[in-house]
Amino acid sequence: MVRSCEAPAVPLLSATADVPTPALVADLGAVTRNVERAAVWFGSGRVRLRPHFKAHKCTRLLRLQCASGGCTGVTCATAHEAEVLALAGFTDILLANEVADPGGLAALKRAASVEGVRVTACVDDRRHVAMLGALGVALDVLVEVDVGQHRCGVAPGEALALARVVAGTERLRFRGLQGYEGHAVLLPERERRADEVMIAARILHAERAALEAAGLACELVSGGGTGTFDLSTQAGALDEIQAGSYVLMDASYGKLGLSFEQALFCRATVVSRQGTRLVLDAGLKALSAEYGMPSARHPGVEVLSLADEHATARVAASSTLAVGDAILLVPAHVDPTVNLHAALHMVAADGTVEAWAVDGRR
Amino acid sequence: MVRSCEAPAVPLLSATADVPTPALVADLGAVTRNVERAAVWFGSGRVRLRPHFKAHKCTRLLRLQCASGGCTGVTCATAHEAEVLALAGFTDILLANEVADPGGLAALKRAASVEGVRVTACVDDRRHVAMLGALGVALDVLVEVDVGQHRCGVAPGEALALARVVAGTERLRFRGLQGYEGHAVLLPERERRADEVMIAARILHAERAALEAAGLACELVSGGGTGTFDLSTQAGALDEIQAGSYVLMDASYGKLGLSFEQALFCRATVVSRQGTRLVLDAGLKALSAEYGMPSARHPGVEVLSLADEHATARVAASSTLAVGDAILLVPAHVDPTVNLHAALHMVAADGTVEAWAVDGRR
Repeated sequence: MVRSCEAPAVPLLSATADVPTPALVADLGAVTRNVERAAVWFGSGRVRLRPHFKAHKCTRLLRLQCASGGCTGVTCATAHEAEVLALAGFTDILLANEVADPGGLAALKRAASVEGVRVTACVDDRRHVAMLGALGVALDVLVEVDVGQHRCGVAPGEALALARVVAGTERLRFRGLQGYEGHAVLLPERERRADEVMIAARILHAERAALEAAGLACELVSGGGTGTFDLSTQAGALDEIQAGSYVLMDASYGKLGLSFEQALFCRATVVSRQGTRLVLDAGLKALSAEYGMPSARHPGVEVLSLADEHATARVAASSTLAVGDAILLVPAHVDPTVNLHAALHMVAADGTVEAWAVDGRR
Repeated sequence: MVRSCEAPAVPLLSATADVPTPALVADLGAVTRNVERAAVWFGSGRVRLRPHFKAHKCTRLLRLQCASGGCTGVTCATAHEAEVLALAGFTDILLANEVADPGGLAALKRAASVEGVRVTACVDDRRHVAMLGALGVALDVLVEVDVGQHRCGVAPGEALALARVVAGTERLRFRGLQGYEGHAVLLPERERRADEVMIAARILHAERAALEAAGLACELVSGGGTGTFDLSTQAGALDEIQAGSYVLMDASYGKLGLSFEQALFCRATVVSRQGTRLVLDAGLKALSAEYGMPSARHPGVEVLSLADEHATARVAASSTLAVGDAILLVPAHVDPTVNLHAALHMVAADGTVEAWAVDGRR
């Protein structure tokens, strides 16, 4: 979107002048438009959206996403998040990872014990099945398949065997498959993303066929993400997409030409300037650095490095930026960045600012 | 220390079996020994310790550090931390960074307004002096000098001019200089660290001499860190060292052969294993990655990558590690790692575990 490359979003800066920096600032207009774009896409076809909580851990924002059309339920990444969501009133919760620690399993049990809540968990090992079965609470289960990411998941061809173990375990219901093409979502060329999505889709098609041939109903195949949501929809193997980043976006997804706009920024203050060297008060405790440097939403400012509390940037000698001035930075990676903050400062079109709690953060 | 390279610290694992993972686990014995080593060093000479809160943001741990000998007061990195410390009963607080945002300045004012609290702030620009002077509260001020890090600080030779502005501003008291050799603290060769410390010391000596020649008393020169504490003490330019990492340590400082032992670990659970590929439930939201991968405190396990919620590791084919087993990881960088957690799970020698709140985290 052109919008994400435009000049400084001055209203966001002036609206948040009194918020202590570094602080996350979100543009409610952009958030709302992103939600609407997703609703148009997922509201019109067979494939639905299961928005991923892990991207922002803000139940208020997730509620806004779910209120739009096309959503089946919600996705989360940890047992703690599942419990937060269950207690916040979400009723169809997919925990899209395996859990194997006693503390996490206890949280998962508490989530699944909340009245009216349906929790679906993932497994890729018989040990997971035994752990979930031992919780003494009804759970739906997806068998995770490695569709090319080579992280979690059974190897292709092995889902049926584990699904049978699930189906044979008391209180567990085999619900289907998960296949997450995490290796594809940020590939810069759309064609390469499409290739990986097709490989993943073929694997999931074959696993589903094997299950159904064996008489095991496969009600749900879940996966996908922001970088591949449209490709996965077209590939047809998934019933729902676990996209999360689309609602706030980041500099990495911003390079892919997706139909979502940048809604999240980090407000930072100039704390030092010596010639063309500018130092901002937003460092590694405010912005995650594993996807590279944040990009400045200010002409001529380039962030060069992040230390614990500081960003060091290069600025044109002619720039008037001085100690006390604030600018906006676009985070390189949304999920771990929001995880560094207690709140999103949501700016409405009329300039009012509300702190939306990042209440799923530990 | 040999200790930090030893076999798995089994008691820490068994003591924390019920703590949900990922979780920070600290060895109170190692913490106590690190504090005692610092007390021996700083208790016996002219140069004292001003422990840095930013390394762990845990007031209970900072109190333990200050209870030992050789401390002048405490250091912190943000105005929010200064306020937390003032409210927690610390009375001599150095904010070792410049603050220039209205929200941060308001927090600094609140901290300095707490009865019996003395706050010292840093400046490197006349604008900072004006901002601090406008707060209407008594503050001590250090002029920060760039001693080679090339981040904040006035250029060498310019401290006197700014110190005069401070001294001429109502309610501000010029207290001295800060010079932080952050560019030196993690240099792998001790000789190179020593060279940089000597350059920094010469700069600070000259600035101090210029101040005193001009009749401006320079009561305090503050700086230094864990990687250079002994070299800076010997160099003689500093009155106090702002070390923080020494008390918990990390894999990066662990390579320098310092006289402190590793006291901090991240407990992680195996959530998937396929052959020699092991996946743990500790990712970028539990461990910061900018200094590289965490090192596993388990024979034959090498962490290869961190994603949002996962670490992927290589393990010997013969390893018995399986889904549900827990291991300890040594964080690569202590400050931003602790900042990702709400608590340190402190394990005493008798195996009891207490959650010490990371109460300085935003």
